[in-house]
Amino acid sequence: MATPSQFLKFVDDNADKFIKRLGEAVAIPSVSGDGKYRPEVFGMSAWLDGQLQSLGVTTKLVDLGKHVMDDQELPLPPAILGRIGDDPKKKTVLIYGHYDVQPAQKSDGWDTEPFTLVVDEKTGKLIGRGSTDDKGPILGWLNVLEAHKTLGLELPVNLRFCFEGMEENGSEGLDDLIKTEVTKGKESWFDGVDCVCISDNYWLNSRTPCLTYGLRGLVYFKLTISGPARDLHSGVFGRMVHEPMTDLITIMGKLVTPDGTILVPGVEDMVPSAQDDEIAIYEKLDYSVKDVEEAVGAPITLSQDKVSVIMGRMRLPSLSLHGIEGAFYGPGAKTVIPASVSGKFSIRIVPPQTPEAIEPLVKKYVEQEFAKLNSKNKLKIENLHDGRPWLADHRHWNYEAAIRATEAVYKRSPDLTREGGSIPVTLTFAESLGVNVLLLPMGRGDDGAHSTNEKIDRSNFIEGSKLLGTYLYEVGAIKA
Amino acid sequence: MATPSQFLKFVDDNADKFIKRLGEAVAIPSVSGDGKYRPEVFGMSAWLDGQLQSLGVTTKLVDLGKHVMDDQELPLPPAILGRIGDDPKKKTVLIYGHYDVQPAQKSDGWDTEPFTLVVDEKTGKLIGRGSTDDKGPILGWLNVLEAHKTLGLELPVNLRFCFEGMEENGSEGLDDLIKTEVTKGKESWFDGVDCVCISDNYWLNSRTPCLTYGLRGLVYFKLTISGPARDLHSGVFGRMVHEPMTDLITIMGKLVTPDGTILVPGVEDMVPSAQDDEIAIYEKLDYSVKDVEEAVGAPITLSQDKVSVIMGRMRLPSLSLHGIEGAFYGPGAKTVIPASVSGKFSIRIVPPQTPEAIEPLVKKYVEQEFAKLNSKNKLKIENLHDGRPWLADHRHWNYEAAIRATEAVYKRSPDLTREGGSIPVTLTFAESLGVNVLLLPMGRGDDGAHSTNEKIDRSNFIEGSKLLGTYLYEVGAIKA
Ligand SMILES: [Zn+2]
Ligand SMILES: [Zn+2]
Ligand SMILES: [Zn+2]
Ligand SMILES: [Zn+2]
Repeated sequence: MATPSQFLKFVDDNADKFIKRLGEAVAIPSVSGDGKYRPEVFGMSAWLDGQLQSLGVTTKLVDLGKHVMDDQELPLPPAILGRIGDDPKKKTVLIYGHYDVQPAQKSDGWDTEPFTLVVDEKTGKLIGRGSTDDKGPILGWLNVLEAHKTLGLELPVNLRFCFEGMEENGSEGLDDLIKTEVTKGKESWFDGVDCVCISDNYWLNSRTPCLTYGLRGLVYFKLTISGPARDLHSGVFGRMVHEPMTDLITIMGKLVTPDGTILVPGVEDMVPSAQDDEIAIYEKLDYSVKDVEEAVGAPITLSQDKVSVIMGRMRLPSLSLHGIEGAFYGPGAKTVIPASVSGKFSIRIVPPQTPEAIEPLVKKYVEQEFAKLNSKNKLKIENLHDGRPWLADHRHWNYEAAIRATEAVYKRSPDLTREGGSIPVTLTFAESLGVNVLLLPMGRGDDGAHSTNEKIDRSNFIEGSKLLGTYLYEVGAIKA
Repeated sequence: MATPSQFLKFVDDNADKFIKRLGEAVAIPSVSGDGKYRPEVFGMSAWLDGQLQSLGVTTKLVDLGKHVMDDQELPLPPAILGRIGDDPKKKTVLIYGHYDVQPAQKSDGWDTEPFTLVVDEKTGKLIGRGSTDDKGPILGWLNVLEAHKTLGLELPVNLRFCFEGMEENGSEGLDDLIKTEVTKGKESWFDGVDCVCISDNYWLNSRTPCLTYGLRGLVYFKLTISGPARDLHSGVFGRMVHEPMTDLITIMGKLVTPDGTILVPGVEDMVPSAQDDEIAIYEKLDYSVKDVEEAVGAPITLSQDKVSVIMGRMRLPSLSLHGIEGAFYGPGAKTVIPASVSGKFSIRIVPPQTPEAIEPLVKKYVEQEFAKLNSKNKLKIENLHDGRPWLADHRHWNYEAAIRATEAVYKRSPDLTREGGSIPVTLTFAESLGVNVLLLPMGRGDDGAHSTNEKIDRSNFIEGSKLLGTYLYEVGAIKA
């Protein structure tokens, strides 16, 4: 079943109307990480629920309970479950998105009011908080629904929706909801789902569409060394006592080399080398050392070799030293010997690494290195949080459909990427439903999702809406 | 000329009156480091000037100009120069002290109002900000003057005074004043000065009086590594780029070992080993590993050997890592790759080390170690401030007089100590006047000079006043 040309034309003809609706969504400051905006997050859930219902989707708002944030008990915004279509002859696609956004204030450095969608006619940018993360993609689905409803077209698949309002603040309550929902069998809103599609990440660059089939996991450590009962003056006690900072820096200096190699024994060995077919994917990517240099604003890549730089992010573990809690951090010169200092570092992990395998290696190594110091200070190492990596089969029909859709809409093959960060819900869907999950981004790599002046390009929003619809037709057509 | 017993008796008889005067001084919150107290610092200078004049001292308030603090231009509190006695047959002693104090608020954790002197009859503690640092010692000199004036006793020496009101805030203006004053020849307030006595430090412990003949110097470094134009997300860029934190921690980890040895080549070698007579001084000190453990609140001394622990503070250089500016320092887990990070560390130096000798060694070593990393980030190393170490001849008659005075008042020999910190004015006097400088502390090691509940013991204040007077008699009597 080819994508009907009326659908594509409808999207073009209604572009301005769709952008206006995006403006309505952006105007609701649904910031989940700041308690005072919580009513707005609820407002956003009502708005979205209303849109879905008016487009023929049956919905259910699921109360996720309460949580405590900044010493305040707050109600969690509801998850919105939705269903449209129940044809046993069609595939069923589950769509995920989040209707909450990152905090934003004009004073952060925005050129325009963050919660007013500004259409820059010259550049084609649609600027506003949430435009690309993740209201644009959610509204892309609404655009697809509206086209079909208005044109009286039948959807090529059954659709299920799961939208949440806490993604930017740890997705609280969502994992439990998904895990509970899948146990309900025929009663489950996820019953019969054949694949999942998540549109909540970005192209590698600003030129080439991509599909994403992998995410790194993470283990975040807090390494605390304590000694004196209180901060000491270095004039009085320097070279009399074991200084916690000296111990901590010595150990932190043994975790990773300046070229990125992780020194914790066993961590690097766990990862198999890339095979030729995988390397071929990296070679084909529309991503250069120069792109990285531009993104970071300095020529500081670990290598000049494109594939090696890309593999560093996509298929190798990384260890970053984030900072130290408890030490002197202000400007100026303070001659303190801090009494207790905590180094923060994290390891991004890739399959087959798991937090369960990595954590004991790190703890053992840190404890061994500390023992070598013969220090009388005390060491404590904690895992602050972790998440498993995710890797999908990019030869699955779900990906094949997305590749065909991209080629149809953008007239080019998508990049096949793995991302260096994590989107935890991806893993939850993959593991709970046991189906293939596809990350199908709408925005570009320079959208500035969590930054000032967040934008989505008009063409990404409009062509992206066509892409989502076309993807559904390709899923409907493909032989599973 | 033995110390007249009337003097000693007068001090005992007037103890309560003296303590009341200390209460008057403590009641003026002459905090130099907080602009809103600046009028009080001026008030304190007027109070002290009035006291000196009423006790027969000729004074001059020297305007030290203005300075900028917290973006506010403020007048500097005056230095108070004073003279009493002009007998060419007598020695001339210059006394230094400071009438400003550290900030204090009850909410910092004080058990009593910091600017109300509380006399704890049970413990004998006189509690209040400035009681020991440095109003108590200054008032000790007033007590000596009052005794002689009231009793009609002739002072055994000519006295010169130099009191400042900015010591707790960098002694701004004082160095210039001293250096200018000494150039004035016969017109100088310091003309004919034979020795200097400073009472602005503390006993090693709470049991044994001491004289201090050495201070360590300092070179404070800021080592900055910068790379990306802005902070990066470790998920996106981890293992793609050279991370400034990795470079910085690697270098900071090569500065000092956990046992305190400085790894910068040449720094340790510069310091000659201690000879037997010097070691004998350390062995004799009433200071144990247990004292250090109690002071720091944990059994973390670098050694269990008393002399080795004491030498670490008194005659060895030390390198402390204070912290990092620009990295993540809060609680919780942030997955940032900081764009620019500055490590702060300082080296306490001892003769014959000088900042001029140490700075290039550190810079060269840091640059060499950075070059080895093959990092594309940028390194910058700065000396934020420095000061030379000071070592006096403790066999000089000035010390001999103080030893005799201590034995007379306290019935025991004083500890001969070197301090690990710095009191910059000591060096300025020693170098500008070219005479012997003695540090003759009044308070105990547990007085908490810059902490909450600062105190001086009643017996230290009263016996200490006798000590200052007796010291003058011993100076007057000794063969120079
Ligand atoms: Zn998102
Ligand atoms: Zn986001
Ligand atoms: Zn002082
Ligand atoms: Zn002080």
